[in-house]
Amino acid sequence: MKIRIIVTGGTFDKEYNELNGRLFFKKTHINEMLKLGRSKVQIVIKSLMMIDSLYMTNKERLKILADCKNSKEKNIVITHGTDTMEATAKVLGEKIKDKTIVITGAMVPYKFGSSDGMFNLGSAISFAQVLPYGIYVAMNGKYFRCKNVRKNKTKGEFEEKF
Amino acid sequence: MKIRIIVTGGTFDKEYNELNGRLFFKKTHINEMLKLGRSKVQIVIKSLMMIDSLYMTNKERLKILADCKNSKEKNIVITHGTDTMEATAKVLGEKIKDKTIVITGAMVPYKFGSSDGMFNLGSAISFAQVLPYGIYVAMNGKYFRCKNVRKNKTKGEFEEKF
Amino acid sequence: MKIRIIVTGGTFDKEYNELNGRLFFKKTHINEMLKLGRSKVQIVIKSLMMIDSLYMTNKERLKILADCKNSKEKNIVITHGTDTMEATAKVLGEKIKDKTIVITGAMVPYKFGSSDGMFNLGSAISFAQVLPYGIYVAMNGKYFRCKNVRKNKTKGEFEEKF
Amino acid sequence: MKIRIIVTGGTFDKEYNELNGRLFFKKTHINEMLKLGRSKVQIVIKSLMMIDSLYMTNKERLKILADCKNSKEKNIVITHGTDTMEATAKVLGEKIKDKTIVITGAMVPYKFGSSDGMFNLGSAISFAQVLPYGIYVAMNGKYFRCKNVRKNKTKGEFEEKF
Repeated sequence: MKIRIIVTGGTFDKEYNELNGRLFFKKTHINEMLKLGRSKVQIVIKSLMMIDSLYMTNKERLKILADCKNSKEKNIVITHGTDTMEATAKVLGEKIKDKTIVITGAMVPYKFGSSDGMFNLGSAISFAQVLPYGIYVAMNGKYFRCKNVRKNKTKGEFEEKF
Repeated sequence: MKIRIIVTGGTFDKEYNELNGRLFFKKTHINEMLKLGRSKVQIVIKSLMMIDSLYMTNKERLKILADCKNSKEKNIVITHGTDTMEATAKVLGEKIKDKTIVITGAMVPYKFGSSDGMFNLGSAISFAQVLPYGIYVAMNGKYFRCKNVRKNKTKGEFEEKF
Repeated sequence: MKIRIIVTGGTFDKEYNELNGRLFFKKTHINEMLKLGRSKVQIVIKSLMMIDSLYMTNKERLKILADCKNSKEKNIVITHGTDTMEATAKVLGEKIKDKTIVITGAMVPYKFGSSDGMFNLGSAISFAQVLPYGIYVAMNGKYFRCKNVRKNKTKGEFEEKF
Repeated sequence: MKIRIIVTGGTFDKEYNELNGRLFFKKTHINEMLKLGRSKVQIVIKSLMMIDSLYMTNKERLKILADCKNSKEKNIVITHGTDTMEATAKVLGEKIKDKTIVITGAMVPYKFGSSDGMFNLGSAISFAQVLPYGIYVAMNGKYFRCKNVRKNKTKGEFEEKF
C-alpha cells in the first residue's frame, strides 16, 4: 500500500529564525521525520503549500481538495495547522467518498524538543492504512470523523462535538 | 475505548548509566512519552517486567500471555525488545483470539536523540484501536500479522516472512 | 569560588506556548541547564527579571547595575537577550571596576533542539572564573570587552567594533 | 587566537549501534557541536584516535604528547574519555611547559539527549583561551591542574586530590 502525504504547513513545520526571533516556514521536515521513525511504508510526498492554517482560505482548501481528488493513492495523510483542521476536513468530507484521508498536525513544532509531531505522524500513517473510506482528524492518539471534531482551544486538544 | 499498555522493557526503555557507560533499565518512560505525544487516549499501564528481549524465555512469555488473557481491555499494546517480538507474537497468537494485541518497540532508546520510539508508540496505539482481533507487530510504520513477521537483523527492519 | 548568575530573560529562556503559538517567558531554565551540564561550580542564582532585551530600558539596566554592585560574589554571569547586550555591558562598564562580569545569552531558546545555550553557559561560567576584573560579553565561544563589542544582526554573531 | 582541538574519542563521541544495541565510535561530532554552539573561534581539528580511554595505553598517550609538542597552536583542547583523563594530563604535564592544554570529555554521549558535552566543550574552549600555560582538566564547569585532579567514580564527577 502506498500512502500520499500532502504537506500544507502548520506548526508541524515551523522553525525558529534566529536572526529575528520569529517562527517561520522554510521547508517541510516530513522526510527527516519519516527517516527518524524508520518508516518503511511506501510514501509519495506532495508539498502543496506552507502556511499557518489561520491564514488558510477557501482557495487553499479547494487546492487541497483537488490534490486529494486527483491522487491515485487511496490512502492520504495531510499535515495541517491545528487551528482549522476541522474546516478542511469538512470541505473534503463533502466531496470525497472513496478515499481514506487523515489530517494531522502538531501542537509544538517538530524542531522543538517538546513536539508531539513524531507521535502524531506515526498515528496518522497508521490510521490511514486501516480506517475505512472517510475523512478523519488524527490528534492526541485518537481519530475523529470529519463531521464530529473540534479543537478545544482552551485545553489545546481535540474532542468530539456531539 | 480503553487501551492496556503492557511494558516488558526492550530498547525502548533502556537508559545510559553515566557511571559505568553501560545501558540499563531504570523504569519505563511510557508515561513521559504519552504526555509528550499529548495522548488523550484512555490508557491503563501495566509494567510487567523490564528485560532485554534477548534474555526473554518461555517463562516471561507465559507471564505476558497470562496478563493479556486476564486483561479486561480488549485492545492491548505491548512494548517489547525488537529481537524476539516474533516469538512472543507467536505464543500469544496460539492462545488469544478475542483481542487486538499490538507489539511494538524501538531500534534506539527513547532517551537518545535519534529514537524511533515516539513514532512507533503513536503507530501502535492507533493500530490497536482499529485493527480486528488478532496479534500484530507494529514497526516501521507498518503492521504485521503474528505468523508472518520477522526482524531482518542485517537491515534492522521488520518484514513479511512470505 | 562562588559565581552569581543574574537572570534577565532573553531568548535563552523563551518557551513555546502551544495554545497560541507564540514565544513567551515562564521561568528560567538555568537550574535545569546547570544540572544537564553536571556543573559542580558553587552558584547563587538571582532571577531579576524576565524580558526580551529589545524592551529593556535604562530602568532595567540600573536594576541590573544595582544587583551587580550589591553582589558579594566577585564573579558574575548575566543571562541576557542578545539584541542589547552591548548597551547593558556599557552601563556596567562605566560603574563597576572590581568584579568580573560576563554577559551571555543564546541565539535559539534552550528548549528548542538547536540551541547554543548550553555551549554559551559553559563558556560564560568558565570565562567568569578566570578573566581579570572587567565587563565582558561571551558569545560564539569568544569573549569581548564591554567597550569593543557589537552584535552583527545580519550574520547573527558577535564581533569586535574596532 | 587559533585553538587546536585534538580528538581522542571517549564517551563524547560514542554512538548507539541500532543493529546490535552496543555503543561504538563512528566519527567525531566536534564539527557538528561547534556549529550548534555557533562557535566563531578559529579552530584546527586533529582527529588523532577514537578510543575508549579505559583502553588507552602509554603508546596512545605518547602519540597525544607528540601531537601537542608539534602543534604550532599554543592553545589546545583535547577531547578524551573521562576514565583516564588524569593519566594523560600527568604525561603531558611532565613534558610540556609552554602551552595551555585543556582536556575535556563527557559523562554522556553527545548524541544522547542528556549529554553534558556542549556545556563541557564551551567550557574547555573558553578556559583554553585564558588560562596561563599548563595542563588542565575541564569538567563540571571547573578547571583542575594536571597534578591535582581525580575522577570520583562513585559520584561521576571530578574533584581535587589534595
